[in-house]
Amino acid sequence: MFPLVFGKVNTNFKGGIIMGHNLAQKILSSHLVSGDLAGGNEIALRIDQTLTQDATGTMAYLQFEAMNLSRVQTECSVSYIDHNTLQTGFENADDHAFLQSTAARFGAYFSRPGNGICHQVHLERFAKPGKTLLGSDSHTPTAGGMGMLAMGAGGLDVAVAMGGGAFYLPSPKVLRVWLTGKLSEWVSAKDIILEVLRLLSVKGGVGKIIEYAGPGVKTLTVPERSTITNMGAELGASASIFPSDEQTLRFLEAQGRGEDYIPLSADEDATYDEELKIDLSLLVPLIAQPHSPDNVVPVSNHSATAVQQVAIGSCTNSSYQDLMRVREILKGKQVHPNVSLVISPGSRQVLSMLSSNGALTDLLDSGARLLESTCGPCIGMGQSPVSKGVSVRTFNRNFLGRSGTQDASVFLASPEVAAASALTGFITDPRTLGLSSEVEFPERFRLDDSMIIPPGDPDTIIRRGPNIQPLPIAPALDNSLDLPVILKLGNNITTDDIMPAGSKILPLRSNIPAISEYTFHKIDPQFAEKAKAHKQSMIIAGHNYGQGSSREHAALAPMYLGLRIVLAQSFARIHRANLINFGILPLTFVDENDLDRLNAGMILHLSGLHQAVKTSEPFAITLDNDSKPVWVKHDLTERQAKILLAGGLLNSTKAAV
Amino acid sequence: MFPLVFGKVNTNFKGGIIMGHNLAQKILSSHLVSGDLAGGNEIALRIDQTLTQDATGTMAYLQFEAMNLSRVQTECSVSYIDHNTLQTGFENADDHAFLQSTAARFGAYFSRPGNGICHQVHLERFAKPGKTLLGSDSHTPTAGGMGMLAMGAGGLDVAVAMGGGAFYLPSPKVLRVWLTGKLSEWVSAKDIILEVLRLLSVKGGVGKIIEYAGPGVKTLTVPERSTITNMGAELGASASIFPSDEQTLRFLEAQGRGEDYIPLSADEDATYDEELKIDLSLLVPLIAQPHSPDNVVPVSNHSATAVQQVAIGSCTNSSYQDLMRVREILKGKQVHPNVSLVISPGSRQVLSMLSSNGALTDLLDSGARLLESTCGPCIGMGQSPVSKGVSVRTFNRNFLGRSGTQDASVFLASPEVAAASALTGFITDPRTLGLSSEVEFPERFRLDDSMIIPPGDPDTIIRRGPNIQPLPIAPALDNSLDLPVILKLGNNITTDDIMPAGSKILPLRSNIPAISEYTFHKIDPQFAEKAKAHKQSMIIAGHNYGQGSSREHAALAPMYLGLRIVLAQSFARIHRANLINFGILPLTFVDENDLDRLNAGMILHLSGLHQAVKTSEPFAITLDNDSKPVWVKHDLTERQAKILLAGGLLNSTKAAV
Repeated sequence: MFPLVFGKVNTNFKGGIIMGHNLAQKILSSHLVSGDLAGGNEIALRIDQTLTQDATGTMAYLQFEAMNLSRVQTECSVSYIDHNTLQTGFENADDHAFLQSTAARFGAYFSRPGNGICHQVHLERFAKPGKTLLGSDSHTPTAGGMGMLAMGAGGLDVAVAMGGGAFYLPSPKVLRVWLTGKLSEWVSAKDIILEVLRLLSVKGGVGKIIEYAGPGVKTLTVPERSTITNMGAELGASASIFPSDEQTLRFLEAQGRGEDYIPLSADEDATYDEELKIDLSLLVPLIAQPHSPDNVVPVSNHSATAVQQVAIGSCTNSSYQDLMRVREILKGKQVHPNVSLVISPGSRQVLSMLSSNGALTDLLDSGARLLESTCGPCIGMGQSPVSKGVSVRTFNRNFLGRSGTQDASVFLASPEVAAASALTGFITDPRTLGLSSEVEFPERFRLDDSMIIPPGDPDTIIRRGPNIQPLPIAPALDNSLDLPVILKLGNNITTDDIMPAGSKILPLRSNIPAISEYTFHKIDPQFAEKAKAHKQSMIIAGHNYGQGSSREHAALAPMYLGLRIVLAQSFARIHRANLINFGILPLTFVDENDLDRLNAGMILHLSGLHQAVKTSEPFAITLDNDSKPVWVKHDLTERQAKILLAGGLLNSTKAAV
Repeated sequence: MFPLVFGKVNTNFKGGIIMGHNLAQKILSSHLVSGDLAGGNEIALRIDQTLTQDATGTMAYLQFEAMNLSRVQTECSVSYIDHNTLQTGFENADDHAFLQSTAARFGAYFSRPGNGICHQVHLERFAKPGKTLLGSDSHTPTAGGMGMLAMGAGGLDVAVAMGGGAFYLPSPKVLRVWLTGKLSEWVSAKDIILEVLRLLSVKGGVGKIIEYAGPGVKTLTVPERSTITNMGAELGASASIFPSDEQTLRFLEAQGRGEDYIPLSADEDATYDEELKIDLSLLVPLIAQPHSPDNVVPVSNHSATAVQQVAIGSCTNSSYQDLMRVREILKGKQVHPNVSLVISPGSRQVLSMLSSNGALTDLLDSGARLLESTCGPCIGMGQSPVSKGVSVRTFNRNFLGRSGTQDASVFLASPEVAAASALTGFITDPRTLGLSSEVEFPERFRLDDSMIIPPGDPDTIIRRGPNIQPLPIAPALDNSLDLPVILKLGNNITTDDIMPAGSKILPLRSNIPAISEYTFHKIDPQFAEKAKAHKQSMIIAGHNYGQGSSREHAALAPMYLGLRIVLAQSFARIHRANLINFGILPLTFVDENDLDRLNAGMILHLSGLHQAVKTSEPFAITLDNDSKPVWVKHDLTERQAKILLAGGLLNSTKAAV
């Protein structure tokens, strides 16, 4: 019951007494490369497996390539295609070809388009208890249902992990969710995580690992557990995890992978930072109302709400069991004429099992529309609802506008609630249908890995469509710089202000020269031209610079345009890390009123930068027509200083490996 | 053997001898409302059935609504959803809701999204031998495989037909294709029509009905015949037709519609305008090379051409038999790792049959990606191939760029060739695989019309999303007009110059006020503003005004902006008809050099217009600063003059019904 070899730091050794370890601590400490689990500061973890999907993977593999590495150093890296499969232009197919060829060349598995959603397929075919998984997708924690420590991260972090580098994160707190009892009929795993979201809110998991334990755990199958760990992302948690037990063995054996099983759970005397208790027998079918996953009420509150669309699928709820329960509800009945029901099975395994056992015919006969086994409507990739429509979805997010229809009302619920609502045309508690539910867990899933291409020849030629351009690399930081200020900004500039999204710009994500033309486009349409004319430059800004989405392109594109320094009153945390990763020096004012002394058009002079970056002392920037300098500081850790001096994380990793 | 009641005009009565009728003549004359079949001039036909699809149907139903009609007057009108089913924005779902509600209100059947491609479903569930069908889709002639006279037309023509109005067309010539022998194994119906295209070219059918006859006909099933009549559109033919015989009865009985059968064929002594002979036993698997469907060579010519994508589906080749033959080839084998194989079954009937008999599992196991039963990649709606890729498709068109990838090479071939190529990764003659082919024609198709909603309540409220605006109607023509010339144009102005297409503008097709802002946008960005400021206006142009695509919006939008007259040196035929249909008077110069005397900014004075339109005499337009008038003429038929005086076809039909 304690198979993991611990790392060098035993965090629970306190005053001579060995305390019991919780499950998260066991996996964390067995993978600890540096840092102190108990300290609350940055720790570094060894990563066993990585996954990427195509929307983020193209950039991750460009970054891996830019590090001049030859093969992935993980136990297993998988490159999935599941996001951009509509292919309304050449860009998607070009991305697929690029990713297929990079996977072959660099030693990753490649899951072909049509093989399924990364998290579902990873769970079926790759996830292993006790291992660490880093994925360039926020729902990577899905694999926590297998007793794995699975975390989402940016593409560059995943590229570094593929290259054998550690993953850095603040040492997390561990919150235990103690489950007792057993779910009633027609109440499902989705209702458990909706209840957790109701109790903790979308900020409730920030900085934490959510660990599930208690006698209720054994009543839940691995796919059910994975629905719960999947939506830990909506709590803001770093990861969610279940023990590895008889259910884990049962799932792995049914996947023909019994040898991957190890038992794994918290010690009986393990301690936790926080705890939550849920009695499963008391739960009722729940639904998240627009426009937040934590806006949760009983389904019965909405029995008068008419529905225009029902969408079943996504990495949250599209397992074989999920869809078999949907079939139990729909079999022999007809979808309401005012409802469009779309179903995207989570994987080819799920789809082919439904096809071979007759369930798919029942679903089609009921009037369901069958979509590809991809993310699809969950990421707004098609199936936008009717204007002002109500859409009930088994997905994980219902943010305003995410469906593609700005005035639609999207509700999140279990597959059972979704199927019941599709029949009646109103949001429906499945218990009111008077049906009985019996779906058996399969003894053996249909096993067919023919759409997963194993690592190939290191000499594979990379297929690079015209939209896929090599990744630009920042130069190492000069010791002296004379930089023009080419833009002065106010407070709360978002990464959307820096690098807008939208259908025109998104297809350019693998093409930094092209996408960089849109840098600050809404604020100053001439910005890119100006920056390129100056070769090297800086900008100045007020408070909270870089808030909002974590997109790496808001650092990558300015770097490409020659931006070397951002001097601001304060920074948003993630964007500041991105600036460092891409070799742009983030500086703050010693006296923030000095912002008023600076304007666009000025030339600022910096010298002795190498030494300044290595120490934590403030240093002076001189101005042309002002004898009084501007004092600035950087607050970089030693690790970050090294990254910056090398010209970014790619350069520093390349130097280290 | 002669069940049709003839119309009043017996066109084959020549000098007292009754000549035999060909099949086309039989249906034409039994539906003739006016005109002379033998004359070569315009004839008018009674239309029994109509079909619309969602890309054109929204406008057609707006036009029907604008005629203030309460219910369709046909025997059967069906509104299909099959084009815009990706739903990447609210517009598609809004169109679906609008069409579902208009179908109910106006008395049409509504085929829900997911139920299949209009032509496949129409063949299965609605098409009847001896009847006429008009559809707002160029591949409407597919139903000719059922012995039906089926023709494509613009949305307004179909709206008029739904309202009980006749369909006008130039009296067609009839070309007989005489088939002898029997296809060899692995040679298919697609190869027959590719051979006809090779022989006749894409212009070979213009102004003609293609009638298939001869002993080879009886060897072809109705779905095979329909592959052939479908691609008659690529010959430019008005329609293609097969006799109604034992094969027709067999298909109808298997569809549970034996009562719709009538035998129907040409008289033995029938005469034809032209004839072509094909010995089926001599045909080999053929393929149309980029970028035209008539660029046909044997498949074996391309055995060294590597393939990156194979797409099986479309209204041409996605019947049950087609996909069962694909299954025979793929079963137990794997799609080549460099090939993306996508399959879109033609209808839910086809899909559910494959699902229930196990064939779908075989297809999935081979690595095929299953798409919805819609037009999909055939209309460039997704699955754009990789850059510079080779895509083998079972579709009907391979025009440059239609796939969404400008530099892709698209080949057209049979499902058998497509499937064989998917296995080997090269364009492959299926005869080289050493397989044997045995697909039985089903005794009974799976019958389930639950996704076809019958005509509904005339009081149904029409659901109109924000992008669906009522159709503007032209005012009746004034007798006197003083019109500013707001634009002077050169020769060969295309309908694309008048009203551009593209992803920004296409979603506005149901919103004339919005789309009209783009009128002449590439030539004069101020045009819409200028036209609206003047309330009524005219433009002048050189030769061949309005060439290119037949899009109605190039007349509808200018009409909305107040354009009353186009004065040009000459007009393209279809656009001239569209101008008349939408109440814009097309005038030409008596002396074409007079164009030089006119310029933008002038005011032209027209009087006595009502009388001028009714007669065919030239009439004078006076200028402000020139005592010499400009003489102009119109060449309108009596019917067209009436339409113009009423302010367009909608007004004149409304007045007549």
